[in-house]
Amino acid sequence: MANKNNQLSRRKFIEQTALAGAALIVTNPLQLLSQTNNFKNMSNNIKSRAYAAKDSSGKLSLWEFERRPLGDNDILIDIKYASICHSDIHQMKGHWGPQQYPQVPGHEIAGIVSAVGKNVTKFKVGDKAGVGCMVDSCMECESCKKGEEHHCETTGFTGTYGSPEKSSPTGISQGGYSNNLVVRDHFAIKIPDNIDLQHAAPLLCAGITTYSPLMHAKIKKGDKVGVAGIGGLGHMAIQLAVSKGAEVYAFTTSASKVEDIKKFGAKEVIVVSGADSFKPWKGKLDYMISTIPYAYEMSSYIDCVKPYGYFTQVGQPVNGELTINNFNMIFNRVNFNGSLIGGIPETQEVVDYCAQKKIYPQIQLIKAEDINDAWEKIVNKEARYRYVIDASTI
Amino acid sequence: MANKNNQLSRRKFIEQTALAGAALIVTNPLQLLSQTNNFKNMSNNIKSRAYAAKDSSGKLSLWEFERRPLGDNDILIDIKYASICHSDIHQMKGHWGPQQYPQVPGHEIAGIVSAVGKNVTKFKVGDKAGVGCMVDSCMECESCKKGEEHHCETTGFTGTYGSPEKSSPTGISQGGYSNNLVVRDHFAIKIPDNIDLQHAAPLLCAGITTYSPLMHAKIKKGDKVGVAGIGGLGHMAIQLAVSKGAEVYAFTTSASKVEDIKKFGAKEVIVVSGADSFKPWKGKLDYMISTIPYAYEMSSYIDCVKPYGYFTQVGQPVNGELTINNFNMIFNRVNFNGSLIGGIPETQEVVDYCAQKKIYPQIQLIKAEDINDAWEKIVNKEARYRYVIDASTI
Repeated sequence: MANKNNQLSRRKFIEQTALAGAALIVTNPLQLLSQTNNFKNMSNNIKSRAYAAKDSSGKLSLWEFERRPLGDNDILIDIKYASICHSDIHQMKGHWGPQQYPQVPGHEIAGIVSAVGKNVTKFKVGDKAGVGCMVDSCMECESCKKGEEHHCETTGFTGTYGSPEKSSPTGISQGGYSNNLVVRDHFAIKIPDNIDLQHAAPLLCAGITTYSPLMHAKIKKGDKVGVAGIGGLGHMAIQLAVSKGAEVYAFTTSASKVEDIKKFGAKEVIVVSGADSFKPWKGKLDYMISTIPYAYEMSSYIDCVKPYGYFTQVGQPVNGELTINNFNMIFNRVNFNGSLIGGIPETQEVVDYCAQKKIYPQIQLIKAEDINDAWEKIVNKEARYRYVIDASTI
Repeated sequence: MANKNNQLSRRKFIEQTALAGAALIVTNPLQLLSQTNNFKNMSNNIKSRAYAAKDSSGKLSLWEFERRPLGDNDILIDIKYASICHSDIHQMKGHWGPQQYPQVPGHEIAGIVSAVGKNVTKFKVGDKAGVGCMVDSCMECESCKKGEEHHCETTGFTGTYGSPEKSSPTGISQGGYSNNLVVRDHFAIKIPDNIDLQHAAPLLCAGITTYSPLMHAKIKKGDKVGVAGIGGLGHMAIQLAVSKGAEVYAFTTSASKVEDIKKFGAKEVIVVSGADSFKPWKGKLDYMISTIPYAYEMSSYIDCVKPYGYFTQVGQPVNGELTINNFNMIFNRVNFNGSLIGGIPETQEVVDYCAQKKIYPQIQLIKAEDINDAWEKIVNKEARYRYVIDASTI
């Protein structure tokens, strides 16, 4: 038995080394050095460089910190790209509650596996891997067992950043605006060969957050689907709904986005300038999803849905608070609901689906030093449509 | 033909006179005089006495005014009882928008038919009749045709009070805190023999407003149904849900109501004193209806419903505005909706159902001079559970 174990271990070692070699070819010399160091010190904390918020100002700066050592069920990801979600901005600014700083945002992460723990079978060194909004959960409750880890009933899920995490030297999880990430293998997503890492990254939040409610709503060919707010999430929602055969009606306050939105496949673009903009659409849509991440005059949007249809709010405003007008609700008879991200199986599904269907986010690659500028542009509705940080510039 | 018409007219005259006689036996001499006068002057405006709001102070006082003459499709109801709905208070105080004064509130009305227009076949003089929240609609659109007059798609429905109404000498509809009412026959409800008028009155709003969403939610035997706010509507919701076999969980802030609520059939009464009160019930209910007529911390209530269940808000707060927290909504996965009253067929259904099943509101009979006091008690949660005005005291 000892001999057999040795053989297995040796084979595993050779495989990992070979694959690591293949992966390392595509990395730069500094990263190679860094990775080699990591390989030698897997039982030690892992050094990380990142852009972190040090306070609630909404400005990030370089930060060096340590991640936990690679555990038996963990993988280490050499991050290549991390894209910027409006949630990053909200959370770092304390819009959703007080935060511990320094904190590294980023939950749309894509890279290459550079090390795996001894129990890991899901990934090999050299694999493309992504991480979205979760890095852990209890894995034992009913929700976790059925692949709805984001609705973990015991501990709740551990968010990719800012969640209390005993294993982290900083006490909280630290996100993806970074050069690397240690994550439990279950919570990493396999990125297929036929999609670039920079296009895969935004799928890990913007993709799944819109895909999951669209699937839950069982949208089908010919359904009239409204999408409110055409940013990182909205432009994915349009493409995903169109790919399922829906007629998409896109509501935006940015007239400058009209041509883009038509290219995403929307049948009509409604440039919202006031209550009158909604009148022709009252009661016309089978379903509507809103990605608007601030409090807004929601009733006019909800009124566009047919009686007994559904309206899903995925954008999360400051403190989560939205005003709903029950006079509208008693007449429009629409069902309002919210939707969080999606579970790990469904996140894998949307990544595979987008790769297969060639559904890509429209991205703008930026250097790490441009993150603060990008954040301002996102708040000012100037993003077109997802900023993706080239992690080699961190 | 002329002869036949004469015969029909004569027979009709005899029937009406006979029935009027039968009905008049139960009225007092003053009313008899008043009715006799009405019969003679059906082409003239009809004199009314009522308690009306003269401004937004929330205080009512006696008012004499005129209603429209009896039209061919109208009936004149000699009002016996009108009950008090929280909506009366909200609307007269201008909580739902500015009002025209004087305005007579009251949309839970029960009485005896004292005259019918020449086209009316639904009622005869002497019939028991009720009027709820509507007195007219277009009667031609899809919603009206299918008995959802409250969702009339063209003109909208004419509310029982405060709606613009060309036929009314005051320019607006005037409600039921009055000695009589002229109403299009379609919008009057037949009150069965086996229910008292004073118990039937509250069914016209409190009954239908809770019955309709409970039926829409298809609650069935064994379902766990929450009822939030145990006043006029809530105590009907409990009894109606229990009658359908549901296990009812009643949420109240009034500890003094516990014993009553158990008598209404609730399985459990939750006396709400803070966020902790809701903890044991998180995700436990199949459905919940809230009758709370003011803005309140809604999230804790909504969280009691199971994922993908439904929560219906029928109470209408000031300006209709409620704060919904989307952090709760993305985790609880509950569908929030509103529900207005119900259509005329369904209103008839709930009145017949309650009469048959002996489901009665718990009422307190008051004189007209006590209306202002009753309004204050309602706002102070002191009503047990529906004040019913004896219209003979107006």
